[in-house]
Order: sequence, then structure tokens, then C-alpha cells
Amino acid sequence: MTSNLQWHLVSRPQKHAAVDNFRLVEASLAPLEDGQLRIQHHYISVDPYMRGRMDDLRSYAEPQPLNQVMGGGAVGEVVESRNAGFKSGDQVASLLTGGWQQYGVSDGTGLVRIENPDVPMSAYLGCAGMPGITAWYGVNRILKPKPGETLTVAAASGAVGSVVGQLAKRMGARVVGIAGGPEKCAIARDEFGFDVCIDRKAGNLHSELAAATPDRIDANFENVGGPILDAVLARLNTFSRIALCGLIAGYDGAPMPVENVRAFLVNRVYLQGFIVSDHLEDWPQASAELAQLIADGALHYRESISMGIESTPRAFLGLLTGGNVGKQLVKLV
Amino acid sequence: MTSNLQWHLVSRPQKHAAVDNFRLVEASLAPLEDGQLRIQHHYISVDPYMRGRMDDLRSYAEPQPLNQVMGGGAVGEVVESRNAGFKSGDQVASLLTGGWQQYGVSDGTGLVRIENPDVPMSAYLGCAGMPGITAWYGVNRILKPKPGETLTVAAASGAVGSVVGQLAKRMGARVVGIAGGPEKCAIARDEFGFDVCIDRKAGNLHSELAAATPDRIDANFENVGGPILDAVLARLNTFSRIALCGLIAGYDGAPMPVENVRAFLVNRVYLQGFIVSDHLEDWPQASAELAQLIADGALHYRESISMGIESTPRAFLGLLTGGNVGKQLVKLV
Repeated sequence: MTSNLQWHLVSRPQKHAAVDNFRLVEASLAPLEDGQLRIQHHYISVDPYMRGRMDDLRSYAEPQPLNQVMGGGAVGEVVESRNAGFKSGDQVASLLTGGWQQYGVSDGTGLVRIENPDVPMSAYLGCAGMPGITAWYGVNRILKPKPGETLTVAAASGAVGSVVGQLAKRMGARVVGIAGGPEKCAIARDEFGFDVCIDRKAGNLHSELAAATPDRIDANFENVGGPILDAVLARLNTFSRIALCGLIAGYDGAPMPVENVRAFLVNRVYLQGFIVSDHLEDWPQASAELAQLIADGALHYRESISMGIESTPRAFLGLLTGGNVGKQLVKLV
Repeated sequence: MTSNLQWHLVSRPQKHAAVDNFRLVEASLAPLEDGQLRIQHHYISVDPYMRGRMDDLRSYAEPQPLNQVMGGGAVGEVVESRNAGFKSGDQVASLLTGGWQQYGVSDGTGLVRIENPDVPMSAYLGCAGMPGITAWYGVNRILKPKPGETLTVAAASGAVGSVVGQLAKRMGARVVGIAGGPEKCAIARDEFGFDVCIDRKAGNLHSELAAATPDRIDANFENVGGPILDAVLARLNTFSRIALCGLIAGYDGAPMPVENVRAFLVNRVYLQGFIVSDHLEDWPQASAELAQLIADGALHYRESISMGIESTPRAFLGLLTGGNVGKQLVKLV
């Protein structure tokens, strides 16, 4: 254990992100300072928000600096510690730091201990980690679906959407998903319990959404934007709510207008944009609730696991074009 | 007093609303039933929201039925009463009913008494009436500007925008208006106390708005939509708020996309669409506060007054193309 393979961002996308925006670098492991600990990453996380950080634009996250380790969440095991709070063998999730590398160094800030023996480590990057907490926050803090209401979410088989649907269903809502292709739709219905899941690629989004929402839409968890959002806007109910946490369709820089702005007014819509990292105060409660649901077998999830650190950029780029089902991870150990 | 001139809506606009969508009809005055009172209208109100009611579309208000009196607010004097709560000579505002006619009949529901001797009757259709209460609700219940924050509002010299600016200024905000033409901008600055007012017709909206909002925009009262909203979105601050109560640019049916949807996410925007008639519980407080500010000389306003019931449709259509300054009224008596 003397070297550390890491992916650096070495150029910014002209339009589409590509593998050659990244470079695999072999760094040496620096000795720890007092208070630090070293984490061997077992899994690293790739997430859609990382596309935004590749651009040098004003956004909710600072741009990823060039020629440094690409940032992101990771889970793993402490292998060396000069921090009194952690010892070798402790399992931890470092959800805001970590990065695309084999080993991370932390001073303990923001680390979450992985302690529930019935929850696999990888789930702390998915259902019990940032995507799950994102779903939890949007459902519990913004949308607050009531029994009998109708909630919609796109990317319904994905890491966030699948948790949104399951949490809303537990609260008594009718849950309508949108996903790309019949396989993902079947997973959303059969594994995640969506009442209906509409295949956005089938070409009848507007009419199928109308048929699936006879009482219109009371709450929409928006993580995609673009034409799907416009279709949802056309079906909103009076006093409906939108939790906006992602616009994957626009991440590659294409303008993505919303046509049906009038729907916001006509329906007196409450829209709240949010980024889960603004709400760290909710993370312990959210992660504990989600982990318990996983341990109870009450929260289902899928993972797409790519093997080996070399595969990280391709796993990430696959996310942006819908190549994954469930939470996309890279397994290192 | 035996006949009642009234304007009926007789056809729906194909695209642009026009005078020939309306017809002036001479009706006879029916005898009052028990509990009713008759109001001679001194002023009737024309407002942008009426354009939406001319279409047979799902909207926040029921469509205006064809071949009936065009609905709208009015103020006037009781001339005949079989209602114990009102007597001849009482002055009242009927803000939700009334209509484009010389005489209205009410059972007393929703009438507001005009009692402050220092406030002219017409103000109860403007600053102390629906437009003023709309401004009050958006500022006090949604935007809540804090001292030192920057608030923007378009149609800054209009009935709603001018009150928005003055209320926000009293709360310590920097207030930036947008208006059409140098005359309206001068009024916004000199009469209504806006810190800056940008002429949207001058062709430099984006650069002038950037210069006028060095600390970006914390709160936006949106009553126009379209390209002006996009310009505002580009200048929003993190955790900014938008109160959306009108989309005048889209009333004639033209699609009015918002291009910069990404701004809602990046800035974690809180947007709330609202219609003031949903919040009748706030009307007494809002109207009383606004009337007192008027009586104290602390709230300035302008009226554009068109003379005679025959002029009503033209006064209304002028609103939609920016022909008015301040609250547009039609004076009958």
C-alpha cells in the first residue's frame, strides 16, 4: 500500500462529456498528519450532479478544479488512523468527500459510521446515502403527499426516483413513474411498487400520463426537466407542489425551456429547488430511517456495479444517457 | 333609474382580444328580493386577469360565460336596499363581483365598506383593493424581503408593481423596477421611490439589470413572464424567492417558454404561484393597512381613468398593451 490510483479532471467538456476529459493518475500515499485517517474505498459513487461540476459555471457546487481528484462520495474501511474517533477496521461513508480514487484522507468531518449490520456498505451510497436522502428530503420536507394524492417522478427506476416512489407509496399516495424503456418500467412497477410506470420512449407521454392521472397530479418530484416536465405541468392540480432537484436533460449545456409556464400560475404551484447538501441537519434522521427500512426489507433497490477504478468515467458517462438501472457504483475492493 | 347598461362577452378571442368580443346591452332593472341591495357603480375596474377569463380554458378562474355581464370589481353607492346591513348612501366596494355595468345587485356577501374618509372611493379598486392586496400578499406572505436584499418587479409603474415597490422599500429592500418606456421609468423612480427602473424597451435589459443588481436578486415579484422573467432568472441569488401572480405576455395565447430553468435548481429557488382571491382571510388586514398608508400619504398611486361605460372594452384592451399608467378605472358617475 504505497500508491493511490486516482481519476483527475483534465479538461472541460466542449459539449458532451467524454472519457478523455479524465486521466488516470498514480499518486503516492502521503503520511497522515495528526487527526487524520485513511480510508480504503470499497465503492465509489458516480452521480448526475457531477456533470454540472465539470463545467466552469456558476452552479450550486463549486466547479471541479482541473488536474485534481474528481470529487464524489465513497464508502470503505479505515486502514490507518491518527484520529482518536476512528480506528482501523471501522466502516465509514464519506458522502461529500472521498473522490474517484482508491484511498481517501479525512479529518473525520462529515463521515457517517456504517453500523447497521443488516445494511450492506454499498447502500450508504444509494438508498441510505445521498440519493436516498435526496428522495427523503423532497418527499418529507417539500411534497408531503397525502393519502389519495397522486405523485409523479421521472427516472422512476433510478437511485433517487425509486426511493421517492416507495416513500410516497408508504404515505398513501398513488405513485406514477416515468422511465425510459419497457424494462425499466417493469422494474419500477414490479420491484418498486409504482402503480403505473410510463415509458417515455414509447411516444405517447402526454396521453399516457393523462390516462394514468385521472385525478391529475398533486406532487411532482422533478429530477429530469425538459419535455417530461412540460407533460407533468399540463396535468397539475390546483395547489400542487414540485420539488426540483435535478435537470439531467440540460446537463450537457443544451437550453431546455419550459413551455407551459402558465401552469405554475393557473395551479398556484409551489416549487422548491433544493440540493440535499444544503440540509445536512436532516441527514442523520433520513439516513437512519432509510437504513432501517432497508434492514426491514421494506425498501427495495437495485445497483448497477461497474468493476475496478479504471471503469469509473465510463460508468459515469453511462448514467447521463440512461445506461444504468438503480444506483450506479464502482466497486474497487 | 329603470335601465342598466351592461357589457356582455359575446364571443371568445381567436387570438387577440378585440372590442367586438363585447356588446353593450341595455337591460332593465329587476325588483330587489329580500336581503338584496342595489349598488350604483361609480367606478368599475378593468384588470389583466380578465383576459384569461375570456378564453374557455381551464384556469384559476371560471371562464366568463358568454352573453352575460362581464365580471369584475366595482365601487359605488347603495341606492336601494332590502338588506338590514346596508342602507342607501352607504359606500361599498364589491371586489369580486360588480361587473361591467351601471348597477349591481348583491346579497352583501364579500362587500367591503368604504369608511376611511381620507381615502378616495376609487382607491378601493386600486391600492386598497385587489391590486394593492395582491402586492401586499406577495410581499408579506411570500417574498418577505429583508433589509439590504434586492427585490425586482416588472410593470413597476402599474397598479400592482408600484405597491410592491413601495411596500418592499418600507421593509428596507433595494427595489429595482422594470417598465416600458422612459416616462413609466421616471414615474417609478420619482413617484414610487424605486432605486432604479430599467426601460425594457431600450434593448439592454440583461446588461442594465446586471448593473442594477450588483448583489444579485433575492426576491422577484413576477407579473409579466417571458423574456423579462428569463432576464431576472439569470440574476437570481442563492435561496431567492419568486412570487408569481401574472403572465401578461402569455394572455393572448402565445406560448411563452422560460429558457433558463436551470436557474431554479442552481439557486434553490422557492417559487409560489398565487391568486389573491384564494386568500380572502388576509383581505381585511391588507386593505386596512393599505388604506391607512394612503391616508397617511405614505403610499403613492396613479390612476388612469377612462370616462363612461361605453369606454370599458377599450380601457381594458389598452391594459394588455401597456397603454395605462397606474390603476386603470372606468368612471361612470
